[in-house]
Amino acid sequence: MNKLKTLQDFMKKHDLSALLIPRTDEFQGEYIASYSQRLAWLTGFTGSAGFAVVAKDKAAFFTDGRYVLQAKNEVPNVYEQYNISQKNPSQWVLENLAAHEKIGYDPWLFTEDQLKKYDRPLVPLTPNPIDHLWIDRPAPPQDSIRLHPLEYAGEDDQSKRRRIAASLKADQLLLTTCDSIAWLLNIRGNDVPHTPVVHSICLLRRDGSYDLFVDPRKANDAILHHLQKTGGQLIDISQVLPHLQKMEGFCQIDPQTTPMILLQTLEQAGVKIVRERDPCLYPKALKNAVELKGAREAHIQDGIALCRFFEWLHKQPLEGETTERLAAKKLLEFRKEGYLFQDLSFGTISGFGAHGAIIHYHATPESDIPLKRDGLYLLDSGGQYLTGTTDVTRTIALGTPTPEQKDRYTRVLKGHIALAKAIFPEGTTGAQLDSLARQFLWKVGCDYDHGTGHGVGSYLSVHEGPQGISKWASDVPLKPGMILSNEPGYYKEGEYGIRIENLVTVIELPELPGFYGFETLTLAPLDLKLIEDRLLTDGERAWVEKYHERIRETLTQHSDRHPIPGGVG
Amino acid sequence: MNKLKTLQDFMKKHDLSALLIPRTDEFQGEYIASYSQRLAWLTGFTGSAGFAVVAKDKAAFFTDGRYVLQAKNEVPNVYEQYNISQKNPSQWVLENLAAHEKIGYDPWLFTEDQLKKYDRPLVPLTPNPIDHLWIDRPAPPQDSIRLHPLEYAGEDDQSKRRRIAASLKADQLLLTTCDSIAWLLNIRGNDVPHTPVVHSICLLRRDGSYDLFVDPRKANDAILHHLQKTGGQLIDISQVLPHLQKMEGFCQIDPQTTPMILLQTLEQAGVKIVRERDPCLYPKALKNAVELKGAREAHIQDGIALCRFFEWLHKQPLEGETTERLAAKKLLEFRKEGYLFQDLSFGTISGFGAHGAIIHYHATPESDIPLKRDGLYLLDSGGQYLTGTTDVTRTIALGTPTPEQKDRYTRVLKGHIALAKAIFPEGTTGAQLDSLARQFLWKVGCDYDHGTGHGVGSYLSVHEGPQGISKWASDVPLKPGMILSNEPGYYKEGEYGIRIENLVTVIELPELPGFYGFETLTLAPLDLKLIEDRLLTDGERAWVEKYHERIRETLTQHSDRHPIPGGVG
Repeated sequence: MNKLKTLQDFMKKHDLSALLIPRTDEFQGEYIASYSQRLAWLTGFTGSAGFAVVAKDKAAFFTDGRYVLQAKNEVPNVYEQYNISQKNPSQWVLENLAAHEKIGYDPWLFTEDQLKKYDRPLVPLTPNPIDHLWIDRPAPPQDSIRLHPLEYAGEDDQSKRRRIAASLKADQLLLTTCDSIAWLLNIRGNDVPHTPVVHSICLLRRDGSYDLFVDPRKANDAILHHLQKTGGQLIDISQVLPHLQKMEGFCQIDPQTTPMILLQTLEQAGVKIVRERDPCLYPKALKNAVELKGAREAHIQDGIALCRFFEWLHKQPLEGETTERLAAKKLLEFRKEGYLFQDLSFGTISGFGAHGAIIHYHATPESDIPLKRDGLYLLDSGGQYLTGTTDVTRTIALGTPTPEQKDRYTRVLKGHIALAKAIFPEGTTGAQLDSLARQFLWKVGCDYDHGTGHGVGSYLSVHEGPQGISKWASDVPLKPGMILSNEPGYYKEGEYGIRIENLVTVIELPELPGFYGFETLTLAPLDLKLIEDRLLTDGERAWVEKYHERIRETLTQHSDRHPIPGGVG
Repeated sequence: MNKLKTLQDFMKKHDLSALLIPRTDEFQGEYIASYSQRLAWLTGFTGSAGFAVVAKDKAAFFTDGRYVLQAKNEVPNVYEQYNISQKNPSQWVLENLAAHEKIGYDPWLFTEDQLKKYDRPLVPLTPNPIDHLWIDRPAPPQDSIRLHPLEYAGEDDQSKRRRIAASLKADQLLLTTCDSIAWLLNIRGNDVPHTPVVHSICLLRRDGSYDLFVDPRKANDAILHHLQKTGGQLIDISQVLPHLQKMEGFCQIDPQTTPMILLQTLEQAGVKIVRERDPCLYPKALKNAVELKGAREAHIQDGIALCRFFEWLHKQPLEGETTERLAAKKLLEFRKEGYLFQDLSFGTISGFGAHGAIIHYHATPESDIPLKRDGLYLLDSGGQYLTGTTDVTRTIALGTPTPEQKDRYTRVLKGHIALAKAIFPEGTTGAQLDSLARQFLWKVGCDYDHGTGHGVGSYLSVHEGPQGISKWASDVPLKPGMILSNEPGYYKEGEYGIRIENLVTVIELPELPGFYGFETLTLAPLDLKLIEDRLLTDGERAWVEKYHERIRETLTQHSDRHPIPGGVG
């Protein structure tokens, strides 16, 4: 079957001049289930960021800098291919379609904000035309919902719902992002890889009662009992539209994440729409004491796994058998020894030599290369533990590093330490701190093309808003309890990549009222062989020593073996 | 005459429930001429930021934290007084007026943006009702317009007009901010204190031709000849409204600065309005090579004046005769010896002891106190030179500083040096660099409640956009040729104030393509007595030594006397 041709026939029949095919699913999350891989089905593209536009006699494919090369290999030539920073789908549409030509889109997969840029008549299509053609389409996931117990969540869902309900600017709130629902209701699931969420929609009313729209096969007795006890009603997610059609009054939605079809259904029902950012974002970001205690426990298990991995790596002959993929697999085995461990929090980035310079490198059977004693090895990985989410990057010199590699590594480390030690007043945003991590690289004309830090969830998304440490995070003050990554890096294309990433949490400083600092959560040794000692100040040297001492003491207490931090080379 | 009562009678007659009295004039600039001091006439308030609302049976006065105490002394009790950060005029109006009650305002003194918040019927009043009542109102200034010669401007006005005209999003541009017009047409004047601008309005057309609306008595033959030669037409500013009534097509305006009356006149004439930020802002901020050379010359003259002042201060017995005002007067005398000097660029801040902690302190005959050998002296001042504008702050220990004062001064200095030495990539904003200047104060729980840097004009406004170094400057990348202040500080209320301010310009770094740094323009010694040497790194110590060496060499070459930098205590 020529998939593209079949779609174009469908368009002709429906008088459409173009079809928009995004990669996202109806929940706008980072990870999608296999039944939502429509873009991969159509184009063959397996990366995590892509978009296709099918027109009457042509088609175009868009991805970002990370995936341009991969797209060239995977996506058929019949698609014009674009780096989305140079041309995006709406620009392409405006250039290739006349003003009257109609565009079809799946209203489950687009938000109001995403559609604003297409200045053409838009025709919502349900069901998605691809779903008719995709014969062997996988079924949606059906794993059971799990309650996230109070001993890990630290606040029961009634209390959370009361807080959020009190903050509403309307009678009711329609929530469609799975991690906000997971946080709000203290539930977890397995519906997508790496993020333990349940595909669901939640309607919260001002009195704290709520409807949970979900596949009823996912709800076991414990869940049903819990819902009953807490004012919740389970409704089959396939019935969400008829349900919304009967609503009235005012309803709050987030225009950045709510599927167009839900918004349109509400508007057609006469419901007044109140547009606000997701009210769970800030409360979810501010971890409570139990979540922070859980994060520390998760990081102990993660640190032990990494130390065991480094010990193992140190013993490998590295003569061709140990590849990037094998190393990642071995690390996963060590992580699985942690009794709280559930899953990786993202696909491990295990990149040797020049692969380390590819910021989101994913080793495939085709790209996989052996680790050798003549280059840098960059390892960015993380785990989902019942009590918290981890994300850590270490760069290891497998042979003798060059003076340039040591210089760059030490500048990255100096920036990492400057941020780790930063003290800043209440109200400071991540944008204001970003340069602290870059300043030593800047001095020699170097930089890195990514943010310095992202928010991290509590046994939830490894990338979580609203906080961040980057020049784009200028309107979110950092507050105690937020967890962020601290991950400066340096990448020399075709040669090597360096990144040092720890998770930190914002803490109050009792001795300096009104000022905050960071506590580093990650417990994984640095490769001392890569440090150019004369570039460190006394204070930086002391930080490294104290950090390794803390790792040694903490992990030794919790492990029957004795990891030797620093002895990784 | 009871001014308030008379205004309230006027309101009654015109069925108005309130009148808005801002301090600003029709050009929305920082300084206003005496004929525009309506707020001072009505309320007695002499500060630079205030706003009155007169209602039927009450009145309110609003100012910011700097002037709350001064307003209490100057403004009659009949006005309710508010700190504008706690309650602003529009909030007061909404609380005190019913929905149908009408508000009168002078449409010359308000922009569209400023009026948006008043959710009441608004009645434009021309002429301003105060102008009827103000018997001895000064006449508007009539000083001649001066051409700003190419040898100082570095680019002729035809070239500037061509560039701006080419960037327009409409057939014509209505410019109403005097410093943009002064820059665009290479003209200067004396219409307000401290900023050498001409009260004027400019209509620029896409072909580069233009109408200059100005009081014709200000135009001498040289100006008239120049206008004629360059496609300009002088029109009496009193005729601007009839002129706009005849316009058609599209007209670009800046909604943040254009008086409401001009906007309304254009709209009534059927002109289509294109709202954009003032297109001169960015080009004006990017100084050309001639302006930068001129800035360096201005700073040499300014540095010589400051050195002579410090020498003089050093010789004073400081036993009660030398007061804050006398010192400021003496500094002005030294500045006047510079042949390029025209005026101060703002009212000198000469604050001894606790007065130094008042960020915008202005010594009045009532507040003036003698300098003594037992405290810190903060001196923030600047000059308007034909070739450039200066702004410099030095803090001087007149006696033996306390250990705390030395600690705080040294932390301010370390921040100043960190910013002065910063290297950063193209695209970096001032918001990203702000924390470099604060980090050492933050470490001990200290901070300062103002931005770290503001833009500075070229023989124009001492405060100029769009660039800045503060958390509010997050969308303006720093570019070569911009001039900014670098002025971290520390203020201990009731005790002392510290600020170290130099002007810097953004420069390219030939050895690091794609990266920028700063060149410090200001040439004035620091008080070495205030430096706690053990807090400095070797690099910081070397920066201070090199800076003083540069001052000594540069100024000695240009001065017949021999200032001794550093010998100020």
